[in-house]
Amino acid sequence: MKDWFEDKLDSLGAALAGCAERPESTALRESGLPGQRAIVETLDMLMGVLYPGCHGPDSGYAGTDAARPLRNVLREIGGRLFSQISGAFEYAGRISETGQGDRAECRARARAAVGALFDALPAIRTTLDEDAIAGYEGDPAATSKAEVILSYPGFFAIAVHRIAHVLYAQGVPIIPRAMSEYAHSKTGIDIHPGATIGPGFFIVHGTGVVIGETCTIGRHVKLYQGVTLGARSFPKNADGTLVKGLKRHPDVEDDVVIYAGATVLGGETVIGRGAVIGASVWVTSSIPPGEKVLSSEIDPSSRKARVLVFDLGAGI
Amino acid sequence: MKDWFEDKLDSLGAALAGCAERPESTALRESGLPGQRAIVETLDMLMGVLYPGCHGPDSGYAGTDAARPLRNVLREIGGRLFSQISGAFEYAGRISETGQGDRAECRARARAAVGALFDALPAIRTTLDEDAIAGYEGDPAATSKAEVILSYPGFFAIAVHRIAHVLYAQGVPIIPRAMSEYAHSKTGIDIHPGATIGPGFFIVHGTGVVIGETCTIGRHVKLYQGVTLGARSFPKNADGTLVKGLKRHPDVEDDVVIYAGATVLGGETVIGRGAVIGASVWVTSSIPPGEKVLSSEIDPSSRKARVLVFDLGAGI
Amino acid sequence: MKDWFEDKLDSLGAALAGCAERPESTALRESGLPGQRAIVETLDMLMGVLYPGCHGPDSGYAGTDAARPLRNVLREIGGRLFSQISGAFEYAGRISETGQGDRAECRARARAAVGALFDALPAIRTTLDEDAIAGYEGDPAATSKAEVILSYPGFFAIAVHRIAHVLYAQGVPIIPRAMSEYAHSKTGIDIHPGATIGPGFFIVHGTGVVIGETCTIGRHVKLYQGVTLGARSFPKNADGTLVKGLKRHPDVEDDVVIYAGATVLGGETVIGRGAVIGASVWVTSSIPPGEKVLSSEIDPSSRKARVLVFDLGAGI
Repeated sequence: MKDWFEDKLDSLGAALAGCAERPESTALRESGLPGQRAIVETLDMLMGVLYPGCHGPDSGYAGTDAARPLRNVLREIGGRLFSQISGAFEYAGRISETGQGDRAECRARARAAVGALFDALPAIRTTLDEDAIAGYEGDPAATSKAEVILSYPGFFAIAVHRIAHVLYAQGVPIIPRAMSEYAHSKTGIDIHPGATIGPGFFIVHGTGVVIGETCTIGRHVKLYQGVTLGARSFPKNADGTLVKGLKRHPDVEDDVVIYAGATVLGGETVIGRGAVIGASVWVTSSIPPGEKVLSSEIDPSSRKARVLVFDLGAGI
Repeated sequence: MKDWFEDKLDSLGAALAGCAERPESTALRESGLPGQRAIVETLDMLMGVLYPGCHGPDSGYAGTDAARPLRNVLREIGGRLFSQISGAFEYAGRISETGQGDRAECRARARAAVGALFDALPAIRTTLDEDAIAGYEGDPAATSKAEVILSYPGFFAIAVHRIAHVLYAQGVPIIPRAMSEYAHSKTGIDIHPGATIGPGFFIVHGTGVVIGETCTIGRHVKLYQGVTLGARSFPKNADGTLVKGLKRHPDVEDDVVIYAGATVLGGETVIGRGAVIGASVWVTSSIPPGEKVLSSEIDPSSRKARVLVFDLGAGI
Repeated sequence: MKDWFEDKLDSLGAALAGCAERPESTALRESGLPGQRAIVETLDMLMGVLYPGCHGPDSGYAGTDAARPLRNVLREIGGRLFSQISGAFEYAGRISETGQGDRAECRARARAAVGALFDALPAIRTTLDEDAIAGYEGDPAATSKAEVILSYPGFFAIAVHRIAHVLYAQGVPIIPRAMSEYAHSKTGIDIHPGATIGPGFFIVHGTGVVIGETCTIGRHVKLYQGVTLGARSFPKNADGTLVKGLKRHPDVEDDVVIYAGATVLGGETVIGRGAVIGASVWVTSSIPPGEKVLSSEIDPSSRKARVLVFDLGAGI
């Protein structure tokens, strides 16, 4: 194919060289923001530190005297995170109206973010143990806590979320979302890093679950596949652009169970403590504590879902 | 970032060293149960043996005289499976009340499991060929059987299931579920390794499909994306823990078609031979053979879905 | 485990050697059609050319003088694509009734296909930039266009589709579908390479979305997770096999929004310009331009979904 092809390469090479000069690519190059792959690799090392032998790259450091090699792994992770996160802050600065991000400030913020994540790691591990127990106790098919840790997509998704959420809280751009989208890709569970989720959280099967940025979820909440905790509407600015940063997603209190395919929408919607939402139910207004919602229908006048309340008995 | 960070490493290293000493991690280390990665690698080699050139690592052994190199690949796979499976049995022993698993017995059970899988491989390949034909004949977009084998998520999911199910039947802990969750991660199709599935099985698109542990599925059954074959309720023991090992999921007889998003629940629910379940229908009681169910509504008194039966005509 | 196992290897090796001699495997071997892995690797290099630093393998060529190294990368990609695609044409010939594919003709068609894709790359990049802007403007949680490019599954899925669709249009067998199933596996979004999709396309969350082979989608269309644009029925030939190549899937005009879990079926179904389809609505007949459909119910007589039309206000 040589001849015709070599001729084509000149024009095409010139045409596409421009791609590397588009703002996002140049800013990426200059800021050193890592690509998806590097972010995932560091996340994977973090998972290996939290669950040696269960997750992460070959956990050679999981020896009897784990402390020393672990120290080296943490130093390596810390160094990578620091450069990735400072790159993300620089990148955000470059693409912002204000333009150039001050490198020194970016490095300071990155240092703070890495410090916050490392300080949080022991607590994250403790919380994840509660999540694993909830998975084992909440699924008749689970034969051990280790099976949940090793295999369950719901556990992997919440583990990645608890890491990404700390970086999100530190204002780190892009990287937390890249981490949560990696978990989404592996599990079909889409948890925005902004969501606040209590301990003992368990997602059964999980494919199709969506949890929005401004959700808050209490302790020991259980969700099934296909559950959406989403936004009801997107207010617009005068210029027609969407208003960003509003409270758009529901609050779910302690001990709530939401069955497969249910949809709960709206920033003022609160699912009260211990409530149960049935499969495929559509909820756009608050449910009192302890209530069991089996079915729903849409009320044309209010254009809201009117929920029909029954006792479900155990399960659905 | 050196100074502040080095100080942090001491305390953090100490705090997290504990992670490697938690029961599941120590038991993992001592039992030699492999992580997710090693299990997937072996599974991948098995797929390469069943469909040389289509799946698995570079199939260098797919030469004109395939028998000799294939023999070596099988020896390699057998050795890996044996150590992984005996590790899984040991691990299960260590975390059980009885504590320590007898290594000799674990090795004997692993030998039996590897033997059972290897004896089953030719039959699995034959059954998978029926599945591939069902995929080609059941999808107007399929242009060849090879396209189904190479690309279709439904084919990949059933292929992994047929391997995992043999190990599940041998009582192998953790590894079968790790295999099925790998397929779940790649395809969005969640088939518990316990499910019993006949030949000529085809899942269209597949994302969001859930098939529970105690399902039985007959010959030439076709499911669309988002179909759940699930449990209706989870009986609890006196101590409040869930009863494990009950028949919780439906039976689906030969030649049944279930369209997108339909939900079929309950261990006593039987979908009769040749029945058709429409998209998004919710079924919690048995459907007679040959019936076509278009729609469903919930009966508050029985708290069950009452199915409305119509002739659908072809497809939906 | 040696002894018992070595004995088993002889019989098993012989039994499975046949696998490599089945038509699809021999044809694969002789035609040089690549496996899933090689196809994905080449696709990944293409993504790296379109979005250096954001996607693809380490983008070492994204330097200040990008033109020269980029030229080399394009030559490498072109060479791989050429041999993969000519292999696919040969393979299709070998498994067709007519048997043997003429190698020279396969090479000529492969040359044409690679040429068509390379000629299309600059336009694909321009269209993808419109898609990325639609993602940023359409999602309140998006903080930058780069976040969409780096992380959003909907962006990845449409990027892969725009590449696969060019090859599909050139009649390339198997490879376009292998590419789209790779994107399906990563994102849970299943876009058949045959679908025709305009610029400014955005899929929110995305898991469970299915877009059929004969869909046409206009400009600035927005879909949410779980939306199906599917077929209503599969006409059969006299011999009972399915008729292939019919127009089976809907047309969606410019500026349409379809919310989570909605199902739109049928080759004659047209969703008019600017229409809004509510969450979980089931549509099997055309919707006029500008209409807002909140709910649906099934009409037993026509066996079609009757849509109930209300003004939704912004969002749902």
